[in-house]
Amino acid sequence: MEIYLDNSATTKPYEEVIETLGSTMRNYYGNPSSAHSLGFKAEQKLREMRTSIAKSINASSEEIIFTSGGSESNNFLIKGFAKPSSNKLNADIITTKIEHPSILNTFKALEDSGIKVAYIDVDDSGRIDIDALIGSITKDTQVVSVMHVNNEIGVVQDIELIGKLIKGKSSRVKFHVDAVQSYGKIFIDVQKSNIDLLSTSAHKIHGPRGVGFAYIKKGLIPTSLINGGGQEKNLRSGTENLAGIAGFDEAAQIVFKNQHENFNKVLEVKKYFIEKLKEVDGILINSPLEPYFTPYILSVTFKGVKGEVLLHALEQKGIYVSTGSACSAKSHKSSEILKAIGRSEIEQVGTIRFSFSEYNNKDEVDYVIIELNKSLKFLRKMNKR
Amino acid sequence: MEIYLDNSATTKPYEEVIETLGSTMRNYYGNPSSAHSLGFKAEQKLREMRTSIAKSINASSEEIIFTSGGSESNNFLIKGFAKPSSNKLNADIITTKIEHPSILNTFKALEDSGIKVAYIDVDDSGRIDIDALIGSITKDTQVVSVMHVNNEIGVVQDIELIGKLIKGKSSRVKFHVDAVQSYGKIFIDVQKSNIDLLSTSAHKIHGPRGVGFAYIKKGLIPTSLINGGGQEKNLRSGTENLAGIAGFDEAAQIVFKNQHENFNKVLEVKKYFIEKLKEVDGILINSPLEPYFTPYILSVTFKGVKGEVLLHALEQKGIYVSTGSACSAKSHKSSEILKAIGRSEIEQVGTIRFSFSEYNNKDEVDYVIIELNKSLKFLRKMNKR
Repeated sequence: MEIYLDNSATTKPYEEVIETLGSTMRNYYGNPSSAHSLGFKAEQKLREMRTSIAKSINASSEEIIFTSGGSESNNFLIKGFAKPSSNKLNADIITTKIEHPSILNTFKALEDSGIKVAYIDVDDSGRIDIDALIGSITKDTQVVSVMHVNNEIGVVQDIELIGKLIKGKSSRVKFHVDAVQSYGKIFIDVQKSNIDLLSTSAHKIHGPRGVGFAYIKKGLIPTSLINGGGQEKNLRSGTENLAGIAGFDEAAQIVFKNQHENFNKVLEVKKYFIEKLKEVDGILINSPLEPYFTPYILSVTFKGVKGEVLLHALEQKGIYVSTGSACSAKSHKSSEILKAIGRSEIEQVGTIRFSFSEYNNKDEVDYVIIELNKSLKFLRKMNKR
Repeated sequence: MEIYLDNSATTKPYEEVIETLGSTMRNYYGNPSSAHSLGFKAEQKLREMRTSIAKSINASSEEIIFTSGGSESNNFLIKGFAKPSSNKLNADIITTKIEHPSILNTFKALEDSGIKVAYIDVDDSGRIDIDALIGSITKDTQVVSVMHVNNEIGVVQDIELIGKLIKGKSSRVKFHVDAVQSYGKIFIDVQKSNIDLLSTSAHKIHGPRGVGFAYIKKGLIPTSLINGGGQEKNLRSGTENLAGIAGFDEAAQIVFKNQHENFNKVLEVKKYFIEKLKEVDGILINSPLEPYFTPYILSVTFKGVKGEVLLHALEQKGIYVSTGSACSAKSHKSSEILKAIGRSEIEQVGTIRFSFSEYNNKDEVDYVIIELNKSLKFLRKMNKR
């Protein structure tokens, strides 16, 4: 029995993705930068995939830069556009308090080099204070960076509204969206949402690790993070990871074909899970069934237990979950988003994230509920001694 | 007929590497940062591979940071240690004029931010002027960066001697070696050669694209290029590309097992090629049979023809070669190393790089020589009209 409910950390690659990786490595081994026909064949393949990937967010192919993943995309896009301004009163960058570490730690690094960053609060359901965000924009603002779907509780920010309001206030500000948790799950139209910069990762949608893309709106030119041979329009050097990109494209093709079906399927599983959680005592749902929460994530606080202990009890039964986000699971830091929605420190420690894929089903939920009840009964009894 | 002689641009992945990638994606799909046992299993696998890779250069496992490849490794290691010094007279960094674009363009980017770089000349065989290099070291020197094997003509720098002399002059200077073209082909012992920082890439040794490693001597702590979740000792964030790393390790295991055999095999092919080139008129050998040239690269200047035209003539016959290095093949820049060894601009344009792997053999050379003669005869005749 293996019930994998940690899909926001990483997903199991599709068999088709693995096949594509292998066949691309066998049949397109030329370097796309080589002048001969093996290189040309590889370059052509790369061009096809860039076009296909671009379509998935309503972008054009020249706006897609392939990277090694979500963290690189976030670092590249933010560092590539952040310049210290002369005015030291206003923020150069505006973001939120609930971003992924690859955003927050990038900002920390930039602050060390003299860039001013403003961190906007979220309300008690985890949604950004949009008025405060827009109100913070000044003539010095270079980038506004917002996470589309939060990785811990799954709250979805209204990027279409935010994009519209940003552009209404200033055409100069670049709007960056960290779409690592939403790409392929919730539809994104970069034009409709006025997005200038967007980060994605392949392995969150059953694609290979080590691949992602950065969308950069036509006309914008960031500083490179990786200089060199001039690949990817001289914005991201390094021999193109053609097989990885092909695997990413394969995964994207599959998830976009099934996007609605998957969404509804996962939504049914989450609904059923929340319904069945009524049979479990002492819980708080951090990811309610609201339209501004993704169905792919269900964060639950279990009173009177430590999440880490519960996680290990569940893994004994073949159930794999996460305490917080995988990226900070081992660091035991307090969670900004759980704090914002009113969870005390002790409640934060008792929080588990169940994250779904289309492979999960209601039978699994039934099993999880049974094992949850057993584990909770045992652990809470132990804690009372 | 497919005779692939562009192995310095990229290599055909080993079938074992493709198999390993697939099986790792299937069997170790957990995120190494996840707290549950699937994550632990993945993390353990990662630890094994780090140990195995570390051994290949006589390093310890905590000195290996996995990256997305050679370009990232070079950017990370150089940018991670380069700080503008207060003394504007002395160079902060010392390197050579014949480095790979991922080094030279990194330095250009650093120069824009106020870092001073000194570029050391090479002699007429392509070897660094070591006296000048050591003479340039001052109390302000932070990094000395030297390419082990040049990607265009294959000249090998004496990194053991250079490392010894650097350390004899200053224990503070960090010695960086770009080993992308040498790793797995020429033995490197980071301890014996006093190397502090070293860059490698998997796809040059029949491994997957998008993977490499950076060796960082214990005790040295660079600034991160990619901030985030704190993976790789907080030096390189991003979900670990476990399958890619496993493929890299598999490729490394194979090349290191066969290192001597491959070296001798390729040397025989190069020797035979040079011998047979006596049957070809109007040529200059840029990669002689000297111990300070790698057997893996043979650069030849063909008088009276354009390399690009010859390349396309050869590809019609299923022979795949390169004009310069793949990374700059399309940019048509003049070559610093060909200039240094005395090639005129017109001769540089007439230069072809044949780069070998253990898959090449003498029969292929016979065929190439026949086709070379045919093509040269035709092209030179055309040019005379």
